[in-house]
Amino acid sequence: MKPADYNRIIIGIDPGTNLMGYGVVGIAPKRKPEVIALGVIHLSKLEDHYLRLRRIFDRVTALIDQYTPDEMALEAPFFGKNVQSMLKLGRAQGVAMAAALERDLPIAEYEPRKVKQAITGTGAASKEQVREMLRRMMALSDTTLDGLPLDATDALAVAMTHFYESSRPDAGASKPRDWKAFIARNPDRVR
Amino acid sequence: MKPADYNRIIIGIDPGTNLMGYGVVGIAPKRKPEVIALGVIHLSKLEDHYLRLRRIFDRVTALIDQYTPDEMALEAPFFGKNVQSMLKLGRAQGVAMAAALERDLPIAEYEPRKVKQAITGTGAASKEQVREMLRRMMALSDTTLDGLPLDATDALAVAMTHFYESSRPDAGASKPRDWKAFIARNPDRVR
Repeated sequence: MKPADYNRIIIGIDPGTNLMGYGVVGIAPKRKPEVIALGVIHLSKLEDHYLRLRRIFDRVTALIDQYTPDEMALEAPFFGKNVQSMLKLGRAQGVAMAAALERDLPIAEYEPRKVKQAITGTGAASKEQVREMLRRMMALSDTTLDGLPLDATDALAVAMTHFYESSRPDAGASKPRDWKAFIARNPDRVR
Repeated sequence: MKPADYNRIIIGIDPGTNLMGYGVVGIAPKRKPEVIALGVIHLSKLEDHYLRLRRIFDRVTALIDQYTPDEMALEAPFFGKNVQSMLKLGRAQGVAMAAALERDLPIAEYEPRKVKQAITGTGAASKEQVREMLRRMMALSDTTLDGLPLDATDALAVAMTHFYESSRPDAGASKPRDWKAFIARNPDRVR
């Protein structure tokens, strides 16, 4: 399908200073969400801090121009090891956000725990469990996933989290905290 | 003088999440550096975090387009009170940096202590002392300074710090640590 065939496109971003994951999801009427793009932006080869930020800005801008998303969903940890790493992460987030803001995309943020909860039903899930759930939910092929860093599926996960969060009728209400409530609310996401 | 008359223009930015200061300095052959623009971007009225980031990006982009600086100098604390405030500051910095990177401006960063050292000769100087030194050095009028937040003169200070740092023949060497060495190296900056 072409971008124009979807009535809603969400770009998910998992910002990091070594790898930045992205996942683009398209939603068409009466269809399950589809993966339009999935990948990572490699940053570790760039030694210069500014070149990395520049790369993030350029690549995120290019992804927005290519896939014309309506919204950006960002995986955003609010707590980190130390102030140094949080400053660096904040800069990487800020640059990715600037690319979205420049193109007038609304931004939504989700903590890693919330993303894991939304995709797997438990906030303590591993990145591998998140990928496995996405593989089944979205029929990702082995070819797609082979060698793909977990940052990419994390980004896809935050895009899907935003889709669920913004689609549910009680959006804004508190989240279910256990598997039972999760299954009750999401029968179509459990096989 | 018009921007075209200067052979080098530096924009200094003091990023904050409530107020963002800016100061633009022009350097012409055989003249002292001149203040081209000096002011602040007000952000506290915007309650939404993303609107603030958007405002920073738009206004910094507009300043770059208006004053055509060759470089950006950023006042950048590397340590903060807590990870939360550093993440927010990192985002504000990242967005301002994105505006510079998009226009291919090189970025230089200086810690507040280094800026104070470069302008007043002591890293422990107050913001008021920095402003007072700039007032005398750059002949800023009372009309210019009346009611102007200290964030603006802080931004001017980082632009001037970058000018000094990049102009001195021993650029890259360690900084003088006391008044005596400072005066010896900068006779024209002491009256």
